[in-house]
Amino acid sequence: MIVARPQSFRRKVNAAMEFRLSEVELPPLYCPLESAVHPHVRHIEKRAVEWVESSGMCASEREKAWVVATHSADFFARFAPVADDDRLLAAVLWVYWGFGFDDARCDSGPLSGRPAQFNALAGQVQRACETDSAVADDRFIGALQDIMRRFRSFAPPTQVHRFAQAHRAWLSGVSWQIGNQAAGRMPGLDEFLAMRLLSAGGHPTFALLELATGAEVPDRDLHHPSVQALTEMAIMVASLDNDRHSLHKELSHGQADQNIYTVLMAERGVPLQEAVDQANVLRDRILLRFLHLHDRVRPTAGTDLATYLQGLRYGVRGNNEWGMRVPRYLSLGHWPEELEHTLPAWADEPSDRRPGPVEQAPCIAWWWDSDVG
Amino acid sequence: MIVARPQSFRRKVNAAMEFRLSEVELPPLYCPLESAVHPHVRHIEKRAVEWVESSGMCASEREKAWVVATHSADFFARFAPVADDDRLLAAVLWVYWGFGFDDARCDSGPLSGRPAQFNALAGQVQRACETDSAVADDRFIGALQDIMRRFRSFAPPTQVHRFAQAHRAWLSGVSWQIGNQAAGRMPGLDEFLAMRLLSAGGHPTFALLELATGAEVPDRDLHHPSVQALTEMAIMVASLDNDRHSLHKELSHGQADQNIYTVLMAERGVPLQEAVDQANVLRDRILLRFLHLHDRVRPTAGTDLATYLQGLRYGVRGNNEWGMRVPRYLSLGHWPEELEHTLPAWADEPSDRRPGPVEQAPCIAWWWDSDVG
Repeated sequence: MIVARPQSFRRKVNAAMEFRLSEVELPPLYCPLESAVHPHVRHIEKRAVEWVESSGMCASEREKAWVVATHSADFFARFAPVADDDRLLAAVLWVYWGFGFDDARCDSGPLSGRPAQFNALAGQVQRACETDSAVADDRFIGALQDIMRRFRSFAPPTQVHRFAQAHRAWLSGVSWQIGNQAAGRMPGLDEFLAMRLLSAGGHPTFALLELATGAEVPDRDLHHPSVQALTEMAIMVASLDNDRHSLHKELSHGQADQNIYTVLMAERGVPLQEAVDQANVLRDRILLRFLHLHDRVRPTAGTDLATYLQGLRYGVRGNNEWGMRVPRYLSLGHWPEELEHTLPAWADEPSDRRPGPVEQAPCIAWWWDSDVG
Repeated sequence: MIVARPQSFRRKVNAAMEFRLSEVELPPLYCPLESAVHPHVRHIEKRAVEWVESSGMCASEREKAWVVATHSADFFARFAPVADDDRLLAAVLWVYWGFGFDDARCDSGPLSGRPAQFNALAGQVQRACETDSAVADDRFIGALQDIMRRFRSFAPPTQVHRFAQAHRAWLSGVSWQIGNQAAGRMPGLDEFLAMRLLSAGGHPTFALLELATGAEVPDRDLHHPSVQALTEMAIMVASLDNDRHSLHKELSHGQADQNIYTVLMAERGVPLQEAVDQANVLRDRILLRFLHLHDRVRPTAGTDLATYLQGLRYGVRGNNEWGMRVPRYLSLGHWPEELEHTLPAWADEPSDRRPGPVEQAPCIAWWWDSDVG
C-alpha cells in the first residue's frame, strides 16, 4: 500500500526551496522542434477575450485579468498554426477555461486541499463535458458546455469523445495531486511522473489538435503503441517544461508543491541546483526518445496522422515559447504584467545522450520498448 | 458550489432503513431481454478459480472464498454466451479482480472513507492497467497486469485502449463515491445517477464485450450518439438493478450508503417502500427507452455493432439472473453460502410507460433527445 513520506521531508524541501531564482541557474533548453504561430492569433485572441468577459466563469475583475493574461490564444495558436479560425477559437477557449478552472478550483482555491469535495466537482464537470443536458451549480459549468457545443458543431463524435476521455484523465490527475496535497504526501519520482502525465492537462490539450486542425486520425493509428508513446512523451516533456516555467513563482512563494524539483530533492536528497540539472537531463532523455521514435513513425504516416504528429512537435516547442514569457509564471504581483518580449535561450545540444529508459521510473519505461518502434 | 446536506438527513435515512427485507416488497422485475449463458461456463469457472487462488491478490482464505463466491464466471458467461474460451476467461478474470478490488479497496476496507489515499491508489492502478512496466506496492497490481497482458495478446490496441479508458471512468466514479462517504454527503438524485453510471463498474464490464467476443466496432458506430446512449442506458439499468440486488445486504447491515433508495428517500422525503417503487419506475422508463432506441438502431447495424448491441441486452438480463442468486448479495454470514437455485420472478409489463426524460435527472436527459434516434 501507499506509505506517506515523513512530514520532515516536506519541511526539509521547504527550507531548501528558500532560494531566490538568482541563486539557481536554469540551463538553456534543448528544443530542436519547429516554431510556428497561427497568422490570425491577434484576431482570435480578441474574440476569445470577449468570450471570457461574457462567459460568467470569472468571479472578479482580477480573476478575469489573470485568465486573459494566460495568453491562451498565443499558447494554442502555436500548437495549431494551420487551422480554421472558428475551430482554433473553440480550442483556445478551452485553454482559457482550463487555466481559469485550474486556478480557481485545483491548484489554489478552496478545494486545493479537499479531495472529497474536488472529486464530486470533477465528476459533475466531467458530466457537463459529456452532455449539454447536465446541470450543476458551478460558474465553470456553463462556459464548458458552450465550448463543447462548438466542438460538436464542427467535429465528428469520435474526436469529441476522445477529447472528453482526455478531459477525464486530466481531472483524475488533479484529484490525485489534491489528495497528495491534503495528505501531506510527497510522491516518489515514479508516482510523480504518472501523476504529472495527467494533472498538467496535457491529454486534453493535445486532444485539441484533432479538433482544431480537423485531422481525423484513424483508430488503429492513434492507438498504435508508437503513437501512444509519442503522445505521452510530448505530454511529459511539456509538463516538465511547465514545472520549469513555474519555478520562479513557486520559489517566490516559498512553496514546496509537488513538482519535478521538490520530488527529486526529496527522492534523491539533493539540493535545488542539482535537482534542476537532473530534471533537465531526465527531460532531455525523454525528448531524444521522442525525436528518434518520431523519425521512425513519420515517413509512413498518412495525412491525418502526420498532421497530428506535427502538432505534437509544434506543441512542445510552442509551450516553451509561450511559457517562458507569460505573466502566469513571471508576474508576482496582485495584477498580471504584460507578456515578456525577450526570447528564450536555447541549447544546441541535449544535456545527456544516454539511451533510456530513465532510471527509477518504471511507469514510463515502456516508451523505450523495442517493439514500440 | 457543492453544498453538503445536513447530517440529519443521513441519520433519518439510517433510521428509515432499519427495516427487515420481509417488510419491504420488491416488485417483480421487467426484463424482456434474451437469456443465454456460455456452454463452457463450468470449465471457465474452474480455470478462473485456479487463477484467483494463485494470483496473489487475496490476503486471506476468507477473502479468496468471497472472491470465488462472486461467481464472476457465471456473471460474464451470460454477457458473452458466444466467445472463444481464452478470451472469455480473460474477461471473467477481470470481473473476479474487479469484485475483489472493490471489496478490499473501495466499498469497504480501509480506504472507503479516505479519498486522498484512494485517489493515489486509483492513479497507480490505472497506470498499471495501461502499462506492464508500471510497478506499485499493492497486491492487486500484478494480477491486473496479468489480465491486461492477456487482453493485449489477442485484441487490437484500440479495443484494449477502450477498456483502459472505461477502467479510468470506473475508478473516477469510485473516487467520487468515497469522497461523498468521507464528507458525509448524500448526493441528490441527479448527482447520484451521474456517479452511479461510473462507480458500479458498468463501463469496463461492457467494454469487455469487444474483448470477449472479438467484435471490433468501428469508431463512428461506437461513438454515434445513439450507441453511446444505448451503452449508458444499459449501464444505468444494470447499476440500478445492482442496488436492488444488494438491498438485502445493506438492510441487514443497517447502513445508509449511497444507493438509489437512500437517495430517493433523502431527495423526496419518502419511506423505503415508496423509494423502492419509485426506483423501479425510474429504471423501467430507462429500460423502455433502451428497448425503443435499440429497435431503431439494430436493423442497420453492421455485424460487429450488432454483436455489441446484443451483448448489451445479454448483459442487462444476465446481470439479473446472476445478481438475484449470488452469495455476494444474499449471504449474510462470515463465509459465503452456495449459489441460490431459485429463479427470479419477472414482470410481464413495465411499471410505467410514460415517455421520458425522467424527472429531476438532467444529467441523463439527453438519452431522450429526438436527434439521438
